Amino acid sequence: MSADGRTGRGEATDFAFRISHFSSTLVAIMATRTGSAVWEGTLKAGKGKMKLGSGAFEGPYSFASRFENASGTNPEELIGAAEAGCFSMALSLNLEKAGHPPKKISTTAEVKLEQSGGGFKITSINLTTEAEVPGIDQAKFNEQAELTKKTCPVSVALSATQINLNAKLVGR
Amino acid sequence: MSADGRTGRGEATDFAFRISHFSSTLVAIMATRTGSAVWEGTLKAGKGKMKLGSGAFEGPYSFASRFENASGTNPEELIGAAEAGCFSMALSLNLEKAGHPPKKISTTAEVKLEQSGGGFKITSINLTTEAEVPGIDQAKFNEQAELTKKTCPVSVALSATQINLNAKLVGR
Repeated sequence: MSADGRTGRGEATDFAFRISHFSSTLVAIMATRTGSAVWEGTLKAGKGKMKLGSGAFEGPYSFASRFENASGTNPEELIGAAEAGCFSMALSLNLEKAGHPPKKISTTAEVKLEQSGGGFKITSINLTTEAEVPGIDQAKFNEQAELTKKTCPVSVALSATQINLNAKLVGR
Repeated sequence: MSADGRTGRGEATDFAFRISHFSSTLVAIMATRTGSAVWEGTLKAGKGKMKLGSGAFEGPYSFASRFENASGTNPEELIGAAEAGCFSMALSLNLEKAGHPPKKISTTAEVKLEQSGGGFKITSINLTTEAEVPGIDQAKFNEQAELTKKTCPVSVALSATQINLNAKLVGR
């Protein structure tokens, strides 16, 4: 249920949200978001589904869609989209704060899954971003891009994982 | 392009995969998965899209779908689905190795996003899993569930973030 008492859309129980105001300033906010998965059977012969709590997506995954070349999704591309999405949104905020609101920020995250010590490990995430930012110089842009890489909430959640950034200004 | 020279489906350039065999043993494997996002405009007035490299999903997100109660997706529910998907698949493998291949594993991940130090932080991920595992006892099941929470690739990538686990045996 939201702060104004409305129940949420769709899977309302997935969602919790609280806002408190003091002197018109937002001082506390919390969102609880959910994702879920079902796996049936063994690793190689089994099959699964992953689902977003908002209902925006549900899709099948398998050993072959994760470790081989079969169709379907996999956890690593969800991590990539989350990191790219968080980075793009937070870079917009940071550029705005620096006096240069952007027109457009396009980011791709490559997530590498490699064999490591008998298992698998996400060894690195390579972010490539292209931004249209009127009036900014390269040094100031780089500063905000590096700041965002280190501080956006998904980057912080993934801070045990190496994240590399290649940031470009385009459309100037 | 895959090891046997076939080009992949869809966004083939998103995907790299290498296998080497010595004495019929899989010794090296790498998958590079991608997710991407585009953000247009400022944080509050802007809008974005997140996309999975496989093409399985593309969907809109916004300030309101992330921090308020609007429809659309958000990075946190993608993280939740990735963690739930990785955990469910890896628990299946670990139970199989322990001599108890499971029938079904259902996992939900709640991802909490809270205000912290002037910004936002993913403060914890609460995993709830229900598993149908013929013949296993509670202690052995708990052991494999805890092991999986610590060692599945997405858990390791997120190891800077608190992950809590509530694991239940069902359908016995």
